[in-house]
Amino acid sequence: MKKSIFNKFSRWYKKYQVSKSPQMNLVWGYFLYTVAGFALLSIPLFHKVDITFVDNFFIATSAISTTGLVTISVFDSYNFFGQLIVMLLFQIGGIGYMTLTTYYLLFTTKRITHWHSRIIGAEFTMPNTIKINDFIKSAIVFTLVMEALGAIAFFIAFRQTGMEYLQAIWFSVFHSVSAFCTAGFGLFNHSFVGYSENVLINTIISILAIAGSLGFIVITDIWYRLAGKTNDISFTSKIITYGFLFLLTVGTLLLFATEPLIQRSGAAVMQSFFQAMTAMTTVGFNTISTGDLSLPTLLFVIFLMYIGASPSGTAGGLKITTLTAMLAILKSRLLGQKKITFFNRIIPFERLYVATSTFMLYTSIIFLFTFLLAYSEDFALPKILFEVASALGTVGLSTGITGELSTVGKLMVILLMFVGRVGVLTFGFALLERKSIDVPETIKDDLAV
Amino acid sequence: MKKSIFNKFSRWYKKYQVSKSPQMNLVWGYFLYTVAGFALLSIPLFHKVDITFVDNFFIATSAISTTGLVTISVFDSYNFFGQLIVMLLFQIGGIGYMTLTTYYLLFTTKRITHWHSRIIGAEFTMPNTIKINDFIKSAIVFTLVMEALGAIAFFIAFRQTGMEYLQAIWFSVFHSVSAFCTAGFGLFNHSFVGYSENVLINTIISILAIAGSLGFIVITDIWYRLAGKTNDISFTSKIITYGFLFLLTVGTLLLFATEPLIQRSGAAVMQSFFQAMTAMTTVGFNTISTGDLSLPTLLFVIFLMYIGASPSGTAGGLKITTLTAMLAILKSRLLGQKKITFFNRIIPFERLYVATSTFMLYTSIIFLFTFLLAYSEDFALPKILFEVASALGTVGLSTGITGELSTVGKLMVILLMFVGRVGVLTFGFALLERKSIDVPETIKDDLAV
Ligand SMILES: [K+]
Ligand SMILES: [K+]
Repeated sequence: MKKSIFNKFSRWYKKYQVSKSPQMNLVWGYFLYTVAGFALLSIPLFHKVDITFVDNFFIATSAISTTGLVTISVFDSYNFFGQLIVMLLFQIGGIGYMTLTTYYLLFTTKRITHWHSRIIGAEFTMPNTIKINDFIKSAIVFTLVMEALGAIAFFIAFRQTGMEYLQAIWFSVFHSVSAFCTAGFGLFNHSFVGYSENVLINTIISILAIAGSLGFIVITDIWYRLAGKTNDISFTSKIITYGFLFLLTVGTLLLFATEPLIQRSGAAVMQSFFQAMTAMTTVGFNTISTGDLSLPTLLFVIFLMYIGASPSGTAGGLKITTLTAMLAILKSRLLGQKKITFFNRIIPFERLYVATSTFMLYTSIIFLFTFLLAYSEDFALPKILFEVASALGTVGLSTGITGELSTVGKLMVILLMFVGRVGVLTFGFALLERKSIDVPETIKDDLAV
Repeated sequence: MKKSIFNKFSRWYKKYQVSKSPQMNLVWGYFLYTVAGFALLSIPLFHKVDITFVDNFFIATSAISTTGLVTISVFDSYNFFGQLIVMLLFQIGGIGYMTLTTYYLLFTTKRITHWHSRIIGAEFTMPNTIKINDFIKSAIVFTLVMEALGAIAFFIAFRQTGMEYLQAIWFSVFHSVSAFCTAGFGLFNHSFVGYSENVLINTIISILAIAGSLGFIVITDIWYRLAGKTNDISFTSKIITYGFLFLLTVGTLLLFATEPLIQRSGAAVMQSFFQAMTAMTTVGFNTISTGDLSLPTLLFVIFLMYIGASPSGTAGGLKITTLTAMLAILKSRLLGQKKITFFNRIIPFERLYVATSTFMLYTSIIFLFTFLLAYSEDFALPKILFEVASALGTVGLSTGITGELSTVGKLMVILLMFVGRVGVLTFGFALLERKSIDVPETIKDDLAV
């Protein structure tokens, strides 16, 4: 009986799946994962206290989207098994997202990395399903190895602070996975504020979050380059790496030079670096109280969350590549150029088209929802704008208003996290339910957006 | 002796002028007008009280740019002759801007209006200097006639309220010119707050400001269409007219439905319409206290100021046409189209290129200066953002912080008003001092940006 219902459902789903666009399938897939997570988290067996319908839905969406915004304390509300489910949800969300974006990058851009030659280069005419599976396996192995190393390092660090043995094991695994997937979920109620001067913990989180947010392709690209195995680092990897380093440096310097909250502390450089890093990688942990930051710093952190990092990793945001394409348009126009270039490379129309649409839609959504939340909530503008940018960028930083949002406000933030993870353009495209997508043309040089 | 210095200067200026781009000449021209206005306003003979260097500079820039933001009361600080100078400055600014934009529109777009056929259509190969002069004369006559009619109507309205005869004459002329040039300068210290329920005055300002902001071409286009003299209203005029009416209706309804300050009053519909109109036309008069508006309304008014109105009139802002081009990109992308269309017309690449650059630069400048003012000033974010959007859009509405800005803050707002009037792209282009500009190509259909 049960099997028959499952079969019916399965057949219905397959029928539905083939009739819709890939974008719709992606949105639908994320939605089903979210609903499954929500159903699991709703089982009272996993609760320490009563949890409302909306809060369970919020945590499930936040985990699948690797955002890390929470309306309730994960540690105080869910028991060990509940916490384990939350971790599995953001692990699935993180790995799923990284393999998807990597796959997309490989197939829409030419010669982006040595992976191309191994997977779809010379053997393009041969059946390449096995090679792709190999590649995705590599990405998953990379993820698990990084997370295992991170957990070991975390364990040493937590033990140094005197944490009890069993708790240290669980906390190490949970936070390592959370950091690498840039999920930002924590089992401490004030994120890592208690560890703002702990060099080891700051280092572990930073390495995991940067690796996760830059993604498998960029990391291996940089690795091969540093190891001297290749001179040919791809244009996209270059843009991502330099853009990331540039923004991270500017962010660190600005916070260090101007934020009163940081200047009063004993570890100003590390705290400046960490807050800039957490916004850009969209990991969302914090070591100083975000709600106490001055207005200019809040605005700058909003800007960093808005940009985000790489399109090939787990980070959210507009992406450095989109920003680059937009800057290329502006620069070329101001110089009176007919063609749009960046670092002497012509950026193809298709990329600019995607970048402009993404920029326009992403920015509009932030302002639309800031406007709507200004109606439904009673918080000051910087706090609302911050929350919206954090949710759509799947960052998870907050000035502390998440738990105090009205039910309507929580539902809006849930929608933002979901759309932020699926991608604004994918979501918009899926809503319009078109089947055809543009096949990327053969292009001279390339910048993935 | 004096003449010789003038000759030297004149020769130097001419030499300078021909060596730079048209954009640089425009920026330079505006700057010289501003300096001349500043010099005149600085003469103590025209003052009622002591006025600082920065305040005179602020008023001169605000007048030339037809913004209307003031750090000091024009009526309390300048005597009649000082006020006359202020009026002449925004009259020059307004007429200069309208003829410039009209000229630009006529020469960069094809078949935009019946004016083309009269001026540059069939007689394109003939010397057309006289025809262009004729056209510009028409625009100036149109302006003066509108302003004269406005002044007469104002006079009747002011006399009805019991205003003294001589004052009524001066106030009528000043406010009529100010409304048509969308300058927003007033001789009342609280703009038109005292007249929020006066139907006649609301009507006069609205007609003048809408006529001025839509501009000569669009108004005559609509006029010819309504009079049945042509069926062929241009695409650009259509987009501007419909876009303007749409936003104005939405704005009025939203303010009427949600703003508590308006709902408490006796003339809710008129007040809603007026605040939406004043933001869109960028005239900048207000009939209710802007600083007392609720947060969502402030955000919506910021949005309207950000968009502005027509590229052919005296209004500032991003312009409806730029917004349309951006929406066309987004819509076409979401529908999976290869070509970018709007109302079934292909919008040429050149227009999209300009629109995207303008959108990007305009939005970036708003956020950069909001960020900088958050450092230098001690006001809440909505007030700062509002001031920046008002200055760059040459609107002149304020939540009341203009006079309380620090000197650095005032200088930043001066720069914003100047850049807002010259145009963000023109200013950026001029800074880079390129001589060549792209010659517009022959294009099938057209949307001016
Ligand atoms: K996150
Ligand atoms: K104005």
